[in-house]
Amino acid sequence: MNNEQIVLAKRPRGMVQVTDMARHTARLPDLPDGQILVQNRFLSLDPAIRYWLNEGMTYIRGVELGEPVRCFAAGEVITSRHPGFAVGDWVTGLFGAQQYAHSDGVDVVRCDPANGSLSLHLGVLGMPGMTAYFGLLDKGRPQHGEVVFVSAAAGVVGTAVGQIARIRGCRVIGCAGNDEKCRYLIESGFHAAFNYKTESTDSALKRLAPGGVHIYFDNVGGDMLDAALLNLARGARVVVCGALSQYNEAIYAGPKNYMKILTARGLLTGLIVFDYVADWPLAVREIAGWLRAGQISTHEVIETGLASFPQALVKLYQGAAHGKLLVAV
Amino acid sequence: MNNEQIVLAKRPRGMVQVTDMARHTARLPDLPDGQILVQNRFLSLDPAIRYWLNEGMTYIRGVELGEPVRCFAAGEVITSRHPGFAVGDWVTGLFGAQQYAHSDGVDVVRCDPANGSLSLHLGVLGMPGMTAYFGLLDKGRPQHGEVVFVSAAAGVVGTAVGQIARIRGCRVIGCAGNDEKCRYLIESGFHAAFNYKTESTDSALKRLAPGGVHIYFDNVGGDMLDAALLNLARGARVVVCGALSQYNEAIYAGPKNYMKILTARGLLTGLIVFDYVADWPLAVREIAGWLRAGQISTHEVIETGLASFPQALVKLYQGAAHGKLLVAV
Repeated sequence: MNNEQIVLAKRPRGMVQVTDMARHTARLPDLPDGQILVQNRFLSLDPAIRYWLNEGMTYIRGVELGEPVRCFAAGEVITSRHPGFAVGDWVTGLFGAQQYAHSDGVDVVRCDPANGSLSLHLGVLGMPGMTAYFGLLDKGRPQHGEVVFVSAAAGVVGTAVGQIARIRGCRVIGCAGNDEKCRYLIESGFHAAFNYKTESTDSALKRLAPGGVHIYFDNVGGDMLDAALLNLARGARVVVCGALSQYNEAIYAGPKNYMKILTARGLLTGLIVFDYVADWPLAVREIAGWLRAGQISTHEVIETGLASFPQALVKLYQGAAHGKLLVAV
Repeated sequence: MNNEQIVLAKRPRGMVQVTDMARHTARLPDLPDGQILVQNRFLSLDPAIRYWLNEGMTYIRGVELGEPVRCFAAGEVITSRHPGFAVGDWVTGLFGAQQYAHSDGVDVVRCDPANGSLSLHLGVLGMPGMTAYFGLLDKGRPQHGEVVFVSAAAGVVGTAVGQIARIRGCRVIGCAGNDEKCRYLIESGFHAAFNYKTESTDSALKRLAPGGVHIYFDNVGGDMLDAALLNLARGARVVVCGALSQYNEAIYAGPKNYMKILTARGLLTGLIVFDYVADWPLAVREIAGWLRAGQISTHEVIETGLASFPQALVKLYQGAAHGKLLVAV
């Protein structure tokens, strides 16, 4: 059986390009005992993909040239030689940018259709939702009445952070890169939103959070992180989740204002969402409940066809879309 | 009565210069009711002095032109119109680079001669000792067997951090800028020391702490902080105490490798020692006990005469001396 793939053709330098990837037709080998064959239905476009394309030490090995681009995918088990999975099971995992994947079941998450549609398990019910949930609740530890500021707030993680913070009684401020996304944030339940391309983050935060920010949930790093550091409330927590502004850079810009952590009597911490895998099912059920109750909403942008993956990845970093970006295989 | 002072003559740009300061003879006004007159015996040279000379927002207002350079001093009460202080009392406080100071007693620390000599109350029994004590114990939370790495370790704060960490059963690594200081660190009880000018911090840490650093006590910032971030053990705490390498810079270099906080499942926090004022007396007594027991040692470099203050301040940032740098008025 043939297996269409999108492979890493050359290692990106700076911003990832469509030409860094190529189509490739591989032959699917026979399914070994103890494994499952997954047919990918949806591929997930996540900021971390660019990070995984770097050489050298990360918390996970870099993708090799000629390998399918690593990404999360949601699919269906179509053959099983693994006692823990049955044909028809919905699963998500790092199945990569391809039609089919073999898996030994390690780090594969089985999805309960009762919680929501398959694609949602790559968004608010999947890794991004888990990132928002554990990053905010376990690392940020929001208290009722505190101010939470989220960058890249129109992304699926950012929107979920804001919505969960609101459920917990916080005042929620988000920023995004165009006015349409800002409107989307207000519709999604944010108390305030600003366009960081037309107003400086520092002046927006001084206007919207004159008493300072108690939790800054950082998806972007760079200048935004520096501006947030200037506006911390006493005891603030900076939760570093990602560095969207930096993934395409060879050397990250460090936060020049990191000494503000001291003067705010705050702390900077971060999140590796895979550390919480054992607690994911509980969190998924809680988020599914909030979805049903209308306390959380989500927006999906679905591109069609495996071939659209490279362009979709570039689009992710251009910040063109809000909500969750997916490719339907 | 005349009062000889060293005042801020012009605002330093970059590295502080002797010519940024000037001698000035002021007239001492009559002592108001509710105040004390302190005769300064020792002036304390501390890294934060440069920070206080900057304009703009800090956790304390900047020194104005023509004002005595702000510094800690230890002296004797020679006149008292304050019910809480008697003539002959030993006191420390932000009395500034001058012979005499009026004070309303707020933020003045009374020193118990039983704990040690007057000058020690500016060092290991004073603000630097308190910084080491609370920074390490309250922010770093050392556990028996952990690896503690201290930069600017031959300074009074750094040496005390290492010695207290050793008392708590940690393996202690220090770095300093010349071999003589490194020998001093080993004599002071550090398990290992390296000269960061002849060996890169990254390679020294990989050699001396192959399992990573559990607590990095950061007195310097800059490249050293970045190298330490590359060598964190899982669950590491980075305690930012100062940024000695950066105080003379207009824009601080932020830690490029701050994302390593995430991958180490660590955190970065900092210390404002004044937050612990209520607990200082207890800490001073504990350190005095360690001094008597020989578990802590300290080294003083004393320059003579108020006029030597500007040169001593420059010397502090040149890193020429180890131990505690003081001016005897």
